[in-house]
Amino acid sequence: MTLAAIPPHPTNTRRRNRRDHDSRDLLLDAASALLAERKAIDITVADTAMKSRLNSALVRYYFGGKEGLLIGLAERDGTRTIRSLEKLLAKAASAEYKMRAHIAGVINTYYQYPYINRLFHHLLTNYDSEASRRCNDAFAKPILAAQEKIIQQGVEEGTFQPCDAALFYFNLMGACDHIFSAVSSVRDILKADSVTDDLRLKYTRHISDFYIAALKAK
Amino acid sequence: MTLAAIPPHPTNTRRRNRRDHDSRDLLLDAASALLAERKAIDITVADTAMKSRLNSALVRYYFGGKEGLLIGLAERDGTRTIRSLEKLLAKAASAEYKMRAHIAGVINTYYQYPYINRLFHHLLTNYDSEASRRCNDAFAKPILAAQEKIIQQGVEEGTFQPCDAALFYFNLMGACDHIFSAVSSVRDILKADSVTDDLRLKYTRHISDFYIAALKAK
Repeated sequence: MTLAAIPPHPTNTRRRNRRDHDSRDLLLDAASALLAERKAIDITVADTAMKSRLNSALVRYYFGGKEGLLIGLAERDGTRTIRSLEKLLAKAASAEYKMRAHIAGVINTYYQYPYINRLFHHLLTNYDSEASRRCNDAFAKPILAAQEKIIQQGVEEGTFQPCDAALFYFNLMGACDHIFSAVSSVRDILKADSVTDDLRLKYTRHISDFYIAALKAK
Repeated sequence: MTLAAIPPHPTNTRRRNRRDHDSRDLLLDAASALLAERKAIDITVADTAMKSRLNSALVRYYFGGKEGLLIGLAERDGTRTIRSLEKLLAKAASAEYKMRAHIAGVINTYYQYPYINRLFHHLLTNYDSEASRRCNDAFAKPILAAQEKIIQQGVEEGTFQPCDAALFYFNLMGACDHIFSAVSSVRDILKADSVTDDLRLKYTRHISDFYIAALKAK
């Protein structure tokens, strides 16, 4: 099935009533909870319907099927993250403050949605280039644009050195993600069953200090 | 099938003749080539036998089956990387030189074996804790130990600041990997179909300069 067959946002094209809104969100919540419990992207329409206690026909109505449901979830999680990032950019704060808050936000997103990178990887690997474009539009590109602005602000303030924002994007996103995706290494190296809240905070401090030091270095 | 059923290194337990050695390596080369061509870890024993022009019974003889073949490949690729790292550590060179060479080595490993993280992730997610332990023993732990030594050398030389080596491990490995695993973002953001040799060199320079600056920062 290609994405062209899936209505991107059926609920945006007409006035939704409260029940419409709730059902769509309940299905996304159910899919999100199932993905967080499992190691692979192996949920089905039936699983999701059962978890949400709604009829599986609703998954087809809102999302066209499993692919549309997964894309809907990636877009919702991505959009939430991007909205907080936009608020952060609008603040009257230093580039260092904004970069530290952004790094904490990225790590918190991976902590809150432990499946998010697997989900993006699954969509980007298994579906057509339209799915890939939508994922990158919802998540990668707005984040890159925000990082570019923060780095530019730091350079103008005289606190940061100029830096290739696109390479920085891959650098930082990989660094923030790895502790969440390399679960067995966390177990064997850090002797932790998963990323606990304490480890999340330690890692956030480590990454923030490290990246700020590198951006400031003369 | 659990790993306990797979003979870990049948070829180590007796004197191999040249033909034995060649067949085992040819099968690993075939599996490596197939994984590099494909997006997922979806090779079969039959595929590998056909690619190597050897009989599929040999896969069972040397590796016990698909799982054993994949673990054998992860161990071989891991061991090659670790051997070069040991040579690097033994050199009479500064910590900065060693860290830059190590970073280039990690990025080159991902470039040369584009499937290596997918392979580790697959093994660590789908098989029992014995497979996970063997992967971490072959790759993660020796790399962490080497990084710890290089950071310690830098601190003793007075060039690096002290740094939590375990958190540094996740930070650096994630950063080196992301440009290879986020293929569609590379296409959409860097406008490149894949990581070209030129991009590999640019990224190596960016990561090295960035990490050395952070390690040196006062």
